[in-house]
Amino acid sequence: MISTFLDAVAGDLTIEAFFSQSAEIETMLAFEAALARAQADLGLIPTDAAAKIEAACHSFAADPSVLSAGMARDGVVGPALVTALRATIGEEHGKWLHWGATSQDLVDTGLVLRLKQVVTHLEARLVDLIQALQHLRGLEGGIRLMAQTRMQRALPFTAADKIDTWLRPLERNRRRLHQLLPRILVVQFGGPIGTRSNLDGRGDLVADRLAERLHLGAAPAWHTARDGIVELGNWLSLVSGTLGKIGVDSVLMAQNEVDAVRLPGGSSSAMPHKSNPVVGEILVALARFNAGLAGTLNNALVHENERSGSAWALEWLVLPQMAVTTAAALNHARRLANDVQFVPDPKI
Amino acid sequence: MISTFLDAVAGDLTIEAFFSQSAEIETMLAFEAALARAQADLGLIPTDAAAKIEAACHSFAADPSVLSAGMARDGVVGPALVTALRATIGEEHGKWLHWGATSQDLVDTGLVLRLKQVVTHLEARLVDLIQALQHLRGLEGGIRLMAQTRMQRALPFTAADKIDTWLRPLERNRRRLHQLLPRILVVQFGGPIGTRSNLDGRGDLVADRLAERLHLGAAPAWHTARDGIVELGNWLSLVSGTLGKIGVDSVLMAQNEVDAVRLPGGSSSAMPHKSNPVVGEILVALARFNAGLAGTLNNALVHENERSGSAWALEWLVLPQMAVTTAAALNHARRLANDVQFVPDPKI
Amino acid sequence: MISTFLDAVAGDLTIEAFFSQSAEIETMLAFEAALARAQADLGLIPTDAAAKIEAACHSFAADPSVLSAGMARDGVVGPALVTALRATIGEEHGKWLHWGATSQDLVDTGLVLRLKQVVTHLEARLVDLIQALQHLRGLEGGIRLMAQTRMQRALPFTAADKIDTWLRPLERNRRRLHQLLPRILVVQFGGPIGTRSNLDGRGDLVADRLAERLHLGAAPAWHTARDGIVELGNWLSLVSGTLGKIGVDSVLMAQNEVDAVRLPGGSSSAMPHKSNPVVGEILVALARFNAGLAGTLNNALVHENERSGSAWALEWLVLPQMAVTTAAALNHARRLANDVQFVPDPKI
Amino acid sequence: MISTFLDAVAGDLTIEAFFSQSAEIETMLAFEAALARAQADLGLIPTDAAAKIEAACHSFAADPSVLSAGMARDGVVGPALVTALRATIGEEHGKWLHWGATSQDLVDTGLVLRLKQVVTHLEARLVDLIQALQHLRGLEGGIRLMAQTRMQRALPFTAADKIDTWLRPLERNRRRLHQLLPRILVVQFGGPIGTRSNLDGRGDLVADRLAERLHLGAAPAWHTARDGIVELGNWLSLVSGTLGKIGVDSVLMAQNEVDAVRLPGGSSSAMPHKSNPVVGEILVALARFNAGLAGTLNNALVHENERSGSAWALEWLVLPQMAVTTAAALNHARRLANDVQFVPDPKI
Repeated sequence: MISTFLDAVAGDLTIEAFFSQSAEIETMLAFEAALARAQADLGLIPTDAAAKIEAACHSFAADPSVLSAGMARDGVVGPALVTALRATIGEEHGKWLHWGATSQDLVDTGLVLRLKQVVTHLEARLVDLIQALQHLRGLEGGIRLMAQTRMQRALPFTAADKIDTWLRPLERNRRRLHQLLPRILVVQFGGPIGTRSNLDGRGDLVADRLAERLHLGAAPAWHTARDGIVELGNWLSLVSGTLGKIGVDSVLMAQNEVDAVRLPGGSSSAMPHKSNPVVGEILVALARFNAGLAGTLNNALVHENERSGSAWALEWLVLPQMAVTTAAALNHARRLANDVQFVPDPKI
Repeated sequence: MISTFLDAVAGDLTIEAFFSQSAEIETMLAFEAALARAQADLGLIPTDAAAKIEAACHSFAADPSVLSAGMARDGVVGPALVTALRATIGEEHGKWLHWGATSQDLVDTGLVLRLKQVVTHLEARLVDLIQALQHLRGLEGGIRLMAQTRMQRALPFTAADKIDTWLRPLERNRRRLHQLLPRILVVQFGGPIGTRSNLDGRGDLVADRLAERLHLGAAPAWHTARDGIVELGNWLSLVSGTLGKIGVDSVLMAQNEVDAVRLPGGSSSAMPHKSNPVVGEILVALARFNAGLAGTLNNALVHENERSGSAWALEWLVLPQMAVTTAAALNHARRLANDVQFVPDPKI
Repeated sequence: MISTFLDAVAGDLTIEAFFSQSAEIETMLAFEAALARAQADLGLIPTDAAAKIEAACHSFAADPSVLSAGMARDGVVGPALVTALRATIGEEHGKWLHWGATSQDLVDTGLVLRLKQVVTHLEARLVDLIQALQHLRGLEGGIRLMAQTRMQRALPFTAADKIDTWLRPLERNRRRLHQLLPRILVVQFGGPIGTRSNLDGRGDLVADRLAERLHLGAAPAWHTARDGIVELGNWLSLVSGTLGKIGVDSVLMAQNEVDAVRLPGGSSSAMPHKSNPVVGEILVALARFNAGLAGTLNNALVHENERSGSAWALEWLVLPQMAVTTAAALNHARRLANDVQFVPDPKI
Repeated sequence: MISTFLDAVAGDLTIEAFFSQSAEIETMLAFEAALARAQADLGLIPTDAAAKIEAACHSFAADPSVLSAGMARDGVVGPALVTALRATIGEEHGKWLHWGATSQDLVDTGLVLRLKQVVTHLEARLVDLIQALQHLRGLEGGIRLMAQTRMQRALPFTAADKIDTWLRPLERNRRRLHQLLPRILVVQFGGPIGTRSNLDGRGDLVADRLAERLHLGAAPAWHTARDGIVELGNWLSLVSGTLGKIGVDSVLMAQNEVDAVRLPGGSSSAMPHKSNPVVGEILVALARFNAGLAGTLNNALVHENERSGSAWALEWLVLPQMAVTTAAALNHARRLANDVQFVPDPKI
């Protein structure tokens, strides 16, 4: 929403791109094209109309200001897009556009298509981080450190022991992702009230065919049951929180008096002798930021009746930020894994 | 912590019992007994000592005030328990008590033993609720209602359609529980710094045998990686949030002007004609309460080094409350499923 | 709600007493007695009735189980109390009991009466803490320490400089309390829907006289505007957060390698050489706990129409805990101020 | 951070501008110019140097990409700005730039200068909203409505009664703002560790003169005591929460079956007969969003030692969003006050 210097540490251009207006338009158009094709496959709408709709979806250059105005008026961007797109298609075929669908189908499925790409990136970074930490463990694992329990020197252990405590939850988070993805990477198609009516009794077939065309899983309508979205948000917080633990460890170990790790540090405007543990600090900040957002997102489960304008908008305010900051955190942690140097404790 | 009239709606005696002082003592004693037995099984400590320790654990009547004083002094209840228990066993065998273990092993594994019973209760209630809603669907599913999107009359559907939107996330939550349990119902055994040292190199064997004796899963030490605890808390919020959606629906449908459901209502001190939708209200309150607590619990992922006194205590402040209120919410929802009566919309 | 060993560090018997069932009953009875007297003062009800009501309020022994059952049934404890009390008074005078009032008047004003005592205790502890820190500053302020910016050694300063950073926000918090108290220590009296109707047009006079008798401020009904409650909760979090900063400083300074303060420490079950900074840890935990609860309490501002059963119950779940843990934190900080010993940095 | 269609309802260009990179640069330059002038006023640095520094601050065109790179490296934008600015000034006078100051002075005071403008806008909108509601009360206050307690029809009242419940907390929020502003609209000047050392013993004079030149209040350094920032954030949540109550009321009253208010509504892509209560919905979403952010911001009170990179960054992630969304909410509420039409209840 606001572009500040903070973006340099909390932002992530790759993931932000999936939440841009153009990406949102692109996936909404993909939805409408696939829906028309799915309905034509089933003989529900004319093949000509589907071809025309698909072509329009490929070539349509939406005017973002028109869509923003629609958003302000309707509280959801769908109606303005459908209206504008239908106008370019013309009356004859345009009446088959968005047939049996509602804005929520368009917006939620469009989101899922982008989340699919987002989690692909996040998992790749997670795997890369795991490998980097494993590599670091191979290189520096034998270094003797002093374990610290309750912020006090406890007993000696090794860098490998420490790295293992970082690695294990990352690996578990990867398994968690695999378990939750089938619940969230599914089509949302329900029509006005989620019942898939108005489709000659073939709503379920349309939904399945639409899912297939979009390479998403099939599922009953989930327009009012936001557990899949919230579960994904909770997972993002688990990831950034796990990285926050790496961050706080590195900050504590990099204290001058402790000197158990060395990190490339940030400079100070007043004290040139200082080297600040920037990466560790930002990992902690992002972890706490996402923890709070997870709490807010869980409030969106209280979704009123067959569509809640307020609970839905709450998701929009929260989930993109969680994805972006988690992605940023993964990059910071990757850098930390590359740059950190463990220092043997001289007293053990 | 505080006993108020609110307990009558937000408390749950069954689940609270698992977080009582006596239940905590009981599972900590079970840990010490099983640890001694496991170590004797492996020939690490004398069989006599293990027998003596086990007997002492079975008969020991801990003095709660001594343990509370220990908690106040040490910030964790473990040391005081071990000291008191060792005194009753005597020097000869007592030196083998808690051997190679640390307070965190005692407290975390003790918690897991109780969480195992807690989730058994919660799942049973979840299943019972699912069945009650399926039964309700069978009885009243055909009743014609008006779907409400964005708080406006949309199109007609049926009570079965509505109930399906309540049922599906509950069923998904059950599957989520099955997936996460193997990650949390595991032993915590790490010794002072999580490395299972000081056990003649047989720390992993001790941990595995201990897990077996306690009917828990085996796992590496997770004393600093709290993702399992947080994942469980997030799940509790998913459940109470899902129930909060049922709650808000019922409150909205029970409005006099809407009259789509009737609920047994609470009385008013000033307006005898009123019937308040108490169950629905409390479901919403508990959902938002747990959503916030989930956010707080996610902060506990930022766990400093090899044991964080503050992040760990934050878990203790939050997780029991989440379990209790989720349990209470399941009971309220069960009552709602029993009592709710759908009312056909006269205009459709 | 749940009594655990954690109470030894997170509880506070003095403040918990104000949220007990008996304290709640006591203040609700005080409300009814004062209301009857106020109405008799204004000639609205017979003096005999007021005397009878007052006498009954003084001698009435409410049955907590009856009130809990009422709470479960009605979602608020007021109706059951009024019913039981009226039964003891008898029909003739009992009809004047609670006249023109509603449960919310009873419950909210009862709460305010107890909050008045709670904040008196909290302010006394705050003042005591400020004085203890000032005393500490006098004793140890000259000790040379190394300031730490961004967890790195920065430049030398003194213990007085450090203590000043702890003192100033405490003093500001005291001023904040003085500013907010006139907004929260006010009577709630509105009748069924907050309009003070049904009182022969003299509702405002009744409210003012009632406030006077209860030694509370006068104010328009605030049954639906919960900003006063939330402001108080936010203040509690400001206090516990300010103390959390003292806590984290003390934990960091007590690290063995840093050794800038010494604290009486908790023992470890596995490592007798260790001394854990228990008080600092718990201050941090309580700060984060209350920070999250503050976020939840702010959600209670979204209070539906003329009385929200769910938003109101959310306050009940949160505010007492915030008061108790803030009180506990003040005690811990007081102990820390007494026990902490600054250690001169040997390198400066 | 991310620009989406949501900005059309959750964004606010006026307030976002104060958090832009250019605004941040501008206020940081104002700080450096005023600091040099203040120091010259006191004879601490040559008047020539101050003149040169001031001129450079007026004409300096910072390269945002350089500053972003500095942010990524240092975790704070200050050092890169000072370095670049000093290079344009040259060695002779440049050595007096930023003299005795640190990045935190630059960044925090720069923030306060912008917050001063932000709160001016917010208060103006608050006053405007209050007046609009008073105007509405004059026009429609006599309309008879049915009060709703606990989502049930209670007793008749008027639109004036309802509007009063919206107005009073807004007026209280204005008074709260007046009380808190003297605590936050103050200079931050402490030097490297907050002690105002290295200024020939005249640090306090420099701070006071600097404050005067910047038209801010004087205050001791508050670099580690973030209660002022958090108090402001809590106030923003009080405002947006108060507006969220107006939002939820309007949504509930706009239900077709209730029909107590009419709002200009958003259109639906599937159901042309519907009119969605967009403004009310978004007010609720923004209230819950800010409530959660307030909880997160309170965590920033736990600020480690003499500067916390992580707690400080957490503020940056949260506070600008809270200001922007509160500003947006005020605009939405203003629109609602203009557009809402109360509808007499036909049954009373």
